[in-house]
Amino acid sequence: MASDNQDTSPLIERLNDAMDSGAFAQVRRMINRGLPPQDVAHLLESSPPKERDLLWQMIDPELQGDVLQYLSDDIQMIYLKRMNPEEFLTATEGLETDDIADLLQQLPDTIIQEVLVSMDAQDRHRVEAVLSYPEDTAGGLMNTDTITIRADITIDVVMRYLRRHQSLPESTDSLLVVSRKDHFIGVLPITRMLVSDPNITVREVMDTDCIVIKADMPDSEVANLFEKFDLISAPVVDDDDTLLGRITIDDVVDVIREDADHSLMSMAGLDEDEDTFSPVLLTARRRAVWLGINLLTAFLASAVIGIFDETIEKVVALAVLMPIVASMGGIAGSQTLTVVIRGMALGHISSSNTPWLLNRELIVGVINGTLWAVVVAGVAVLWFNDLTLGFIIGAAIVINLIVAVLAGAALPLILKWMKIDPALAGSVLLTTVTDVIGFMAFLGLATVFYLS
Amino acid sequence: MASDNQDTSPLIERLNDAMDSGAFAQVRRMINRGLPPQDVAHLLESSPPKERDLLWQMIDPELQGDVLQYLSDDIQMIYLKRMNPEEFLTATEGLETDDIADLLQQLPDTIIQEVLVSMDAQDRHRVEAVLSYPEDTAGGLMNTDTITIRADITIDVVMRYLRRHQSLPESTDSLLVVSRKDHFIGVLPITRMLVSDPNITVREVMDTDCIVIKADMPDSEVANLFEKFDLISAPVVDDDDTLLGRITIDDVVDVIREDADHSLMSMAGLDEDEDTFSPVLLTARRRAVWLGINLLTAFLASAVIGIFDETIEKVVALAVLMPIVASMGGIAGSQTLTVVIRGMALGHISSSNTPWLLNRELIVGVINGTLWAVVVAGVAVLWFNDLTLGFIIGAAIVINLIVAVLAGAALPLILKWMKIDPALAGSVLLTTVTDVIGFMAFLGLATVFYLS
Repeated sequence: MASDNQDTSPLIERLNDAMDSGAFAQVRRMINRGLPPQDVAHLLESSPPKERDLLWQMIDPELQGDVLQYLSDDIQMIYLKRMNPEEFLTATEGLETDDIADLLQQLPDTIIQEVLVSMDAQDRHRVEAVLSYPEDTAGGLMNTDTITIRADITIDVVMRYLRRHQSLPESTDSLLVVSRKDHFIGVLPITRMLVSDPNITVREVMDTDCIVIKADMPDSEVANLFEKFDLISAPVVDDDDTLLGRITIDDVVDVIREDADHSLMSMAGLDEDEDTFSPVLLTARRRAVWLGINLLTAFLASAVIGIFDETIEKVVALAVLMPIVASMGGIAGSQTLTVVIRGMALGHISSSNTPWLLNRELIVGVINGTLWAVVVAGVAVLWFNDLTLGFIIGAAIVINLIVAVLAGAALPLILKWMKIDPALAGSVLLTTVTDVIGFMAFLGLATVFYLS
Repeated sequence: MASDNQDTSPLIERLNDAMDSGAFAQVRRMINRGLPPQDVAHLLESSPPKERDLLWQMIDPELQGDVLQYLSDDIQMIYLKRMNPEEFLTATEGLETDDIADLLQQLPDTIIQEVLVSMDAQDRHRVEAVLSYPEDTAGGLMNTDTITIRADITIDVVMRYLRRHQSLPESTDSLLVVSRKDHFIGVLPITRMLVSDPNITVREVMDTDCIVIKADMPDSEVANLFEKFDLISAPVVDDDDTLLGRITIDDVVDVIREDADHSLMSMAGLDEDEDTFSPVLLTARRRAVWLGINLLTAFLASAVIGIFDETIEKVVALAVLMPIVASMGGIAGSQTLTVVIRGMALGHISSSNTPWLLNRELIVGVINGTLWAVVVAGVAVLWFNDLTLGFIIGAAIVINLIVAVLAGAALPLILKWMKIDPALAGSVLLTTVTDVIGFMAFLGLATVFYLS
């Protein structure tokens, strides 16, 4: 993923040059006429705070909403906060319902109410429909701009009905067939309509055995359905099968990207919305918290070492070698942890295959523990000319690697069961385990052999 | 991402029960008639090797290709290797060109040739077109099943032409307009065709200002274009603008998922195709390599400690506290590393904003280094009742945190410039830096203060 894709750097440099030389009119023209809003958003995300603010102020007010919807949550928030309800309405005019709702959801409730009352009745109704569902559910993801038809009309009538539109909503790959009471009946894929005899009815060609999404389905499940069945859009219904709207693949792609980023970022104590160019103080504060949590782990490890200070005083080689034991455990454990967290995200891991998985990790731990124990023991014996030391470190590595892989596999399962995010808490807890067990095993064995 | 989406566990349990009780006929029926191939693939991916092999053998030969295309590369390989060219042809009959090419690409060249000669001329020609481009480019990703039209005919003629088809290719959201010599001219979005007057020509409504993809564009760039412009499909052309095929969003979603997984998995020395249930020996061998590489790092750290063994012998508290210095550096560095690797993947980081980024990291390192140095120094003074020790560890933490964040930011940039995968090599190198600098600063300062 480390390719230099989307490298807008020549553009950024040209903009930087233009800004440095004060050619603001030129920059303004480039932003407001030359570039698609996606590129402007990308440019903002690739700019340090000061340049970012300058750029933002140059965007025409009515284009700001277009750009906003492509920004990450972190940065959206910065600029949304500075808008009053009127500015918000100007900026978001013409956006799709789900995108307006997404932006609104970031604002405090009082502002949301102010914005809603200023909207016209139809828009308000639509946005409220989306807002009534949590952001991370199908309902929060859906769009209300569906084209609905009845089952008893002919294809020819449908075609004439469509021709009365100025344009069809984006990503329209199928028409939704509903009853008189707006109950969902089926879908008519446009590609199927195009190859059908114009004189037959919708009922004869429509698809009733299609994927229908309940409004309260979590968005990651929606993403999995889209991925699995190569969907472009899917209807969203409530518990009574009343059609509420539809979800389109472009919004699902965002969910997939965010979900996939989540594990990576969480394992380093970061948020998946993290702004690459977030300002110094915000960055320092957020990271300080994570450092503090990890410091507790480190102190715990130190406390364990402290128990054995007499042993270390006697055999200083222990201090030299002890990081090896902890580090090998940490690496082995984090490999297992990563595999299990990803396997859980992909839905691979269930109660029926967990025993096999734990068993495999145990055997892998024994094999790799033994292999590297022999290597490290050999090096230790040659280095310090001390057979006992070789035996002690070898045994400690076997113990720590087995504990590490079992903890790496079990921790995410336990955390998930406790409804704690395994990607966030898993790595800290794992390090605690591998440090404590590693130092305890190594120094404990050493105390037995050298001090008794 | 740790939700229990796609939880097929009840299904797996039913299958397990059926298998345990030897009800193979029932399992076979469930797999071959009840389940979509995506679910069968998911079931295979969620099964340990023995159950997986049993399940695979129960899949009807002509369904195996359908299932294969949804499996991850690792598992595909296992079953592809066992097929002879005839079985491959039976299994892949009816698959799309790009999917057949994807599967073929995993096989040795001699087998590819054998399969190609057994294909009929048209299919061979199509598959060869895709195979002639690397798997990770637009050409390797494309499909050749395009519907092409001429610019000078009317919409009505297009509609009648379409009606002569049995069905249209999947994810057909637009028709591709080409010249007599197959040069790409523009696209006619189906939704636009449907709202157009049937008597006007394609030329009048087609879109010539659309995204066109060159066959040699890297797949991650293709994914970024699709994501940025909410595309469902896009035409692929060669350097002469001759139309070669089209790329559809379903294949792009797989690229997005794989790219996003890559950073997560690589940072733990794993492959993004890693099979959650890979067998013991394969797992042990792969992980052993990564442990070995990290062991070198650990030995290096030990060697640094070894230099200062006299100091440690004198002040054993140093051995107790030294993991804290290394660990704080490791955490701070890996946060920066993760942010930068992700920022690079998103195309945020360029030469013009790198100085700002390094500067921010430096300041964040100073702030957080100072903050936690004070805390750790305070604890150390209280714990060991030694002011000098507090000063030494505080100074070492400030030094190590600053070096850590700078290394975390600079390493991925340097590695990328050297064309080495930053996600894979970055974390090992970073640990080396934070361990060596951490121990060196702490124990070095201690030697100056206690031994002189």
